[in-house]
Amino acid sequence: MVYHAAMNRRTFLGALALSPLARAAELPPVNAARLRDHLERLSVFGRPAGGTFADGVSRIAYSDADIAGRRYAMDLMANAGLEPRLDPAGNISARRSGSDPSLAPVLFGSHIDSVPNGGNFDGDVGSMAAIEVVQTLNENHVATRRPLEVAIWSNEEGVAFNNGITGSRAAAGRLDPGELDAVWNGMVKRDAIHKIGGDPGRIAQAARAKGSFHCYLELHIEQGGTLEREGFPIGVVEGIVAIDRYDAEIRGFANHAGTTPMPERRDALLAASYLTVAVNEIVRAQPGRQVGTVGQIAVTPNAPNVVPGRVLQTIELRDLSADKIKALAAQLRDRAADIARKTGTEIELRQVAHHDPALATPAVQQTIEAVCAKLGLRTMRLPSGAGHDAQAMATLGPMGMIFVPSVGGISHSPKELTRWEDCANGATVLMHTVLALAG
Amino acid sequence: MVYHAAMNRRTFLGALALSPLARAAELPPVNAARLRDHLERLSVFGRPAGGTFADGVSRIAYSDADIAGRRYAMDLMANAGLEPRLDPAGNISARRSGSDPSLAPVLFGSHIDSVPNGGNFDGDVGSMAAIEVVQTLNENHVATRRPLEVAIWSNEEGVAFNNGITGSRAAAGRLDPGELDAVWNGMVKRDAIHKIGGDPGRIAQAARAKGSFHCYLELHIEQGGTLEREGFPIGVVEGIVAIDRYDAEIRGFANHAGTTPMPERRDALLAASYLTVAVNEIVRAQPGRQVGTVGQIAVTPNAPNVVPGRVLQTIELRDLSADKIKALAAQLRDRAADIARKTGTEIELRQVAHHDPALATPAVQQTIEAVCAKLGLRTMRLPSGAGHDAQAMATLGPMGMIFVPSVGGISHSPKELTRWEDCANGATVLMHTVLALAG
Repeated sequence: MVYHAAMNRRTFLGALALSPLARAAELPPVNAARLRDHLERLSVFGRPAGGTFADGVSRIAYSDADIAGRRYAMDLMANAGLEPRLDPAGNISARRSGSDPSLAPVLFGSHIDSVPNGGNFDGDVGSMAAIEVVQTLNENHVATRRPLEVAIWSNEEGVAFNNGITGSRAAAGRLDPGELDAVWNGMVKRDAIHKIGGDPGRIAQAARAKGSFHCYLELHIEQGGTLEREGFPIGVVEGIVAIDRYDAEIRGFANHAGTTPMPERRDALLAASYLTVAVNEIVRAQPGRQVGTVGQIAVTPNAPNVVPGRVLQTIELRDLSADKIKALAAQLRDRAADIARKTGTEIELRQVAHHDPALATPAVQQTIEAVCAKLGLRTMRLPSGAGHDAQAMATLGPMGMIFVPSVGGISHSPKELTRWEDCANGATVLMHTVLALAG
Repeated sequence: MVYHAAMNRRTFLGALALSPLARAAELPPVNAARLRDHLERLSVFGRPAGGTFADGVSRIAYSDADIAGRRYAMDLMANAGLEPRLDPAGNISARRSGSDPSLAPVLFGSHIDSVPNGGNFDGDVGSMAAIEVVQTLNENHVATRRPLEVAIWSNEEGVAFNNGITGSRAAAGRLDPGELDAVWNGMVKRDAIHKIGGDPGRIAQAARAKGSFHCYLELHIEQGGTLEREGFPIGVVEGIVAIDRYDAEIRGFANHAGTTPMPERRDALLAASYLTVAVNEIVRAQPGRQVGTVGQIAVTPNAPNVVPGRVLQTIELRDLSADKIKALAAQLRDRAADIARKTGTEIELRQVAHHDPALATPAVQQTIEAVCAKLGLRTMRLPSGAGHDAQAMATLGPMGMIFVPSVGGISHSPKELTRWEDCANGATVLMHTVLALAG
C-alpha cells in the first residue's frame, strides 16, 4: 500500500475534518485522459485480428482474451497502489484502508468480460473508473473513514455456460448445486474457473456475508437510448429488471428435403420459427417495457437438403415485475403446445436461469443526485433493462447504480459508444458518491 | 484386368450368341451376402465414434472419412477385376471391355458421400451394386458387346461448399466460373478437389462429350415412402425434379436484449423466422408435389442476451416443373420484402444453385420394366424428389434410374433403411438392365 506509506498525516486528518460534500467541491475531477487511455488499452484484449477500437471486442469470460484483460486490470490496480486478490470464483478485488478499520467498506466496480462481437464500454467503463477513482483519491491525498473496495467480477455476461452471471452471484452465495459441472464449448465450468485463477473446490467461500459492505456502487453505460435521447449526462438507476432465461428444445425428425412430402414433415426449424414469432407477439401484446428475445439457435443437422430434426434455442424475458414475466412464460407454454401439435414436433421449455428484480436503495439514489447537483450534472431516474453485478450485490446490502449515455442506445455490438466526456463525468460522480458514503 | 486373362474364350463367344433377355433367365442373381458385406464395411468410414451400423454415417465429401470410403471402394473395384482411375474432378471410374471397342459404353454407378448424420444406403447401394454387377458378370463369365463403365461420382450431396453436386456436374461440363474458389469450413474448393486426388487445374477435362456413353443407369434408394407404402419392390423413375437453392441473408442490427425496447429492434432472427414460415406457407398454398425447405441457418452473434444482427439461411425449392418453382420463388421475394419492411431488416435472396429437371429416357424405362417382368418383380413408375448424379448425366445421353424402397420413407437420417433383399433385387435388376442395353 504505497500510497498510505507516503501519505501526509496532516492531509489525512484534514480530510476527516471535512464533510464529504465539502470535499467534493475541492477535489478535481478524475483524470479523463488517463481513463480513456486505460479503456483503449484494455480494448486490445479480444479485439478482432487487424481491427481497431471501433471494431469492438470478443472477450468472452474464461477465454484467453479475458485472462489477458484481467491481467491488465490487475496491473492497473497495482499501479494505483492497490493489492489485487482473487477469490475462489475468480473475482478480482482490492482494498484501500480507511481510518476506521472496524467499519464495513464501500464496495464498487463492474466487469470486463464481453459478449461475442461486443463493445468496449459495457463493464469496462465501470471497472476502469473504479480504479481511476482510487488513483485520483491517492493523488489528491484524500482519506476516507470507511475502507474502499474495488471489485472486478468474473463472467458477468453469462455467455459462457449459458447459465448467467457467475462471479457476483458466487459472491452473493447464490450458485446452483452442480453448476460447476456444466459443459460449454468442450470446457467444464469448474476448469474454466480454475483457468482464471479461481479455486472451484472452495467456491462456497467466495460468498460474502450480508452487511459485509456498507453499500455497493456500480457505474455502467445505459445500453439503451433514453439518456441520450432526453439529454441527461447521468442516469440514477431505480432498479434492475428480473430476467428469466429458458432453453427451448424442439424435437422433430430429420429427413430428406426432396422426398419428404410437406404434410409428412416434422420440421424442428419450422416449429422453432413459429416459437420465435410467438415470443415476439406475446411480449408485444400488452403495454409496458417488458422485452423477450430469441438470441441463440442451434440446428441439427443444419444442412440445406435435410429437414431439420432438432433445434435448441434460448428465450429470455425481462421486466421489473417478476410476476409479469412469469405470466408471459405461461402464455408461451400454451403457444408452444399448439405449435408442437401443428408441426408434429415435441417442444420442451426448460428454465435455465432466474434473476430477481433488484431495487436500488432510495438513500443511495438520493446521494448520487445530491452529488450531481453539486457538480452541475442533470440527472434522470430510470430502470435498468440489463442485468448487472449490482443485482447480486443488492441481495447482501444497499445498492446504487450510475448510468452514462450510450450513443444511439447501441450496446452488445462493436458500435457501442459512450462519449469520453460522459465516461469521465460518470467516474467523477462515482468518486464523489464513494466519498459521500465512505465518510 | 485379371478377369479377362482368365476368361474362357468359349464362354465369351457363347455369351455373345445369346440375346440379353435369354441370358437374363440363365444368370444367377447378384451375390446378396457379398453386397451386404460391402455396404456394412463401407459404413465404418464416417460412423460416429462408438456407434454401430444403425447410428448412420457422416461422410461429407472431401472429409477424411470420404477419402477412406473412396479408398475402400477403389479396393473393391480392383478385387472385381477393374482398374479404377480418377478424373480431374475426383470422380472414380473403371471400364470393363466389351467385344466391340468401337461402341460407347453403358455407364452406371452412384456416389458414396453423405449428408451430416446421414444413412448407409443413400448412394452407397448404387455404388456397391455397380461393383457387384461387374463381379457377378465376371464370375459367370458373361461378356458384353458394349464396354461397361462403373462410376462413383464425387460430392453428390453438395453439403460441402453449398453449391450443389460437383463430380457428375463437372463430368457434364456444367461447373460455374469461379466455383473452385468457393470457401467452406476454412477450405477452398480447389484444394478440396486436390485432397481427394482430383486435378483442379485441369477440371475442364473432366467433361464428357455428348454421346460418349450409350446410356447412364443408376440404382438408388427411393428416399420417400411411396414404394414401401404401395408394396412395390422396384420403382422405375420417370424423371428427377428441378431444384433451386437460395441463400437468404437477413441484415438487422445486433443490440442488447435487455435495453432495446421491442419497437426499436431490428431483429434478424425474428425476420428469418417469418421467412421460414413464409416458405412453408407459400409452398403448401397450392396443390402438387412441390417442396420447400429451410434446412440450414447461421446467426450472428448467436448469444442469448443479444438481439441477433445477421442471419444467413438456405432455402431450397423442388418440383418436376422448373416454372413452378420459379413462380414460388417470385412469391417468396414479395413476402421477403414485406417481412423486411415489418421487421426493419434488409433481406437479400441470392440464387446459389439451379438444377434443371431431368426426364428419364422412355426406352430405358421400358427396358427396366421388361427386365423386372422377366424376374417377377412388380414395378411402379414415380418421379424422384431428390436430385441425383443421373440428372447431370441426362444432359449428355439417355438415362434411367431404378429405385428400391426406403423403410418409412426415411432418408438423410441414421434411421435410413433399405431391406437387404431389396438392395439385392435392385442390384440384380441393374445387372440385367445393363446386359439388355450392352448387348
